[in-house]
Amino acid sequence: MPRFNPLVANLSAPPIPSVFAWASAYDGSSGPMIDLSQAVPGYPPHPEMLRLLGENAASRAYTGYGPIEGEESLRKAYAAHLSETYGTTLAAGNVHVTAGCNQAFICAAMAVAGAGDAVLMTDPYYFNQETTLAMLGVRTRFAPCDPANGFLPDVETLAAAITPDVRAIALVSPNNPTGAVYPPELIAAIYDLCVTRGIWLILDETYRDFLPGGAGRPHDLFARKGWEETLIGLYSFSKSFCIPGHRLGAITAGPAVVEQVAKIMDNLQICPPRSAQAAVATALPLLADWREENRREIARRVEALRTTMAGVPAWRVGAVGAYFAFIGHPFEGTPSARVAERLAKEAGILCLPGSYFGERQEGYLRFAFANADVETISRLRERLSNFG
Amino acid sequence: MPRFNPLVANLSAPPIPSVFAWASAYDGSSGPMIDLSQAVPGYPPHPEMLRLLGENAASRAYTGYGPIEGEESLRKAYAAHLSETYGTTLAAGNVHVTAGCNQAFICAAMAVAGAGDAVLMTDPYYFNQETTLAMLGVRTRFAPCDPANGFLPDVETLAAAITPDVRAIALVSPNNPTGAVYPPELIAAIYDLCVTRGIWLILDETYRDFLPGGAGRPHDLFARKGWEETLIGLYSFSKSFCIPGHRLGAITAGPAVVEQVAKIMDNLQICPPRSAQAAVATALPLLADWREENRREIARRVEALRTTMAGVPAWRVGAVGAYFAFIGHPFEGTPSARVAERLAKEAGILCLPGSYFGERQEGYLRFAFANADVETISRLRERLSNFG
Ligand SMILES: Cc1ncc(COP(=O)(O)O)c(C=O)c1O
Ligand SMILES: Cc1ncc(COP(=O)(O)O)c(C=O)c1O
Repeated sequence: MPRFNPLVANLSAPPIPSVFAWASAYDGSSGPMIDLSQAVPGYPPHPEMLRLLGENAASRAYTGYGPIEGEESLRKAYAAHLSETYGTTLAAGNVHVTAGCNQAFICAAMAVAGAGDAVLMTDPYYFNQETTLAMLGVRTRFAPCDPANGFLPDVETLAAAITPDVRAIALVSPNNPTGAVYPPELIAAIYDLCVTRGIWLILDETYRDFLPGGAGRPHDLFARKGWEETLIGLYSFSKSFCIPGHRLGAITAGPAVVEQVAKIMDNLQICPPRSAQAAVATALPLLADWREENRREIARRVEALRTTMAGVPAWRVGAVGAYFAFIGHPFEGTPSARVAERLAKEAGILCLPGSYFGERQEGYLRFAFANADVETISRLRERLSNFG
Repeated sequence: MPRFNPLVANLSAPPIPSVFAWASAYDGSSGPMIDLSQAVPGYPPHPEMLRLLGENAASRAYTGYGPIEGEESLRKAYAAHLSETYGTTLAAGNVHVTAGCNQAFICAAMAVAGAGDAVLMTDPYYFNQETTLAMLGVRTRFAPCDPANGFLPDVETLAAAITPDVRAIALVSPNNPTGAVYPPELIAAIYDLCVTRGIWLILDETYRDFLPGGAGRPHDLFARKGWEETLIGLYSFSKSFCIPGHRLGAITAGPAVVEQVAKIMDNLQICPPRSAQAAVATALPLLADWREENRREIARRVEALRTTMAGVPAWRVGAVGAYFAFIGHPFEGTPSARVAERLAKEAGILCLPGSYFGERQEGYLRFAFANADVETISRLRERLSNFG
């Protein structure tokens, strides 16, 4: 057989399916599996969302090829939503719709970096960002986040890690895997660093709608003069609308970036899936209250997670927020994949090993608790206490 | 502003939107615009297709993340369809669903080639394949197709163009842009060449369902022992089901290739859009007769195109078949983009310049006639005769 591209052949298998295999080996002895593996909302989409999805998919209006950058209706609706969220004015031309936020990331990354260039990430990182860069031959540099500082990145550490080949810093806030919410001042300081060093800031805000209430704006960068020269924002409609299967995300950027991304997207898939875009364009203003209610529900789950974990002090909460908690396990020296595998098979708790998010993270597990309701989360206490 | 990835910055703007701009400048003096620019079926999807799309999109069953490789239902239905088409046995494990055939191509290309490797293409080529490779830093080698031989590729010419860095040959049959249908023996000979030289054959059969009636099987390669070690087949559901806006395509390959592609797709978009997959899984057997009727209709358009062009002998038919005709224009020395622009603005005929498909193709225009009915096609005669 002719060889494969070594950059792809060397990637490990996608992590989520391999973790599901552990779940199948669980005998059920501790009760139903508590699935904290994947970042999916543990509640259904709004009935009106389903109705809109069905109605638009059945329409002839969306069967043909559409605009590469996305439906004008969604670009406008999302720009209006962004303008409100960030207290500034963003236009449809600042938006490029994508088929999910993973695709938004690969487009942003390719727009600014090619094989041999480098991108600077935090450690821990979101694994698909790392594997995306690896398969493109883009090098990765890492700035470790200090557990003692709640896994927030440190500006000095980032600055020191910017080698001359670094074209961008990739950030995720609220963070996957840690759940850490980066304060606006921290995001601003990292932005300033990028400006000074003449590199891009790629900021993934997939979990933006689940920031704690009263936290104010996520950051003020989109209101800064000249932000288009530095910032590329990424977002996902998967979590906020409970529709990952319909594959929608977005890039927020200056027109010059949007123009580059359109060239990439034309090759990648010509246009994003159309009928779901039309549905979300309508749902975006319509379901604002429902999204606010979900934000509150997720905040209740954060609290439940905190309270529950306080009852099992051998397990430390490294960070928690939005969708995730990064949990220090008590088995020093045992690889996190081994701990996660045993937790799945013996205690019926499905989560991801810290090592999936960076070599340094063997002491941790990622709990995607947004997937479980408050009652289910509280059952972690007994299961973790009995687990030895 | 920090720099963009030069590989992306150097790509020209996506061709289709720029051609639409010429259309807007047409004053309508020759009658309604005849749009032969984009390869879209000029008839609507079947009502049952729309019903299925709507029903599945409204279902909660497809809102979550799905399998990376695609819905089991579609993989099975498509494998059954392939088995019948090629007179052999293919299984769900041979199928990786993608969001359209452009995405199928980039996945196949990335699986076998990285920056610095090369892929051998025909000239003329399908432009998105060329730009996809360019943006990945994959080099391209070209084997010119002889107009005197109906733009069929020549095995000797291909063999001579295989430099040591070539990892794959990319073929399209029926061809875009020429419409040439490659005979099974020719495809087999190129396959044998790939086997001998230890490289992959990536075969894009987006227009397979529009082969002339009674032509027999498209080729026998999937029935060959060991085909998985050489062949990667690509397909699109866009044209056959008239649903490009729903973004579905597929890769047919050995399990080892499917495994590599899954790693790429996980990064690219986690999974293909789900509800449309479920709809097509049902429609694939259900709408077989309707697709056969469309095949006949497209064959009538091929005939209409031939007859019409015989009436304007200054314009030569370089090749014609399935969706496209590659037409030699009579303005020697005038760049094809200039001819196409004038045709659009003055004669109300929208088509693509040959140069979009390769430097050597300045003498040609691509007519995507599948987009027009027989009556419309026949009107080309007068418009071309009057055009000077
Ligand atoms: C940080 C982050 N970015 C991007 C994504 C991808 O989301 P999607 O492609 O469903 O929009 C995820 C999904 O879990 C994520 O956690
Ligand atoms: C040869 C060929 N391959 C692939 C595609 C992409 O089709 P889609 O992405 O809509 O499946 C096209 C579209 O025109 C094509 O002509």
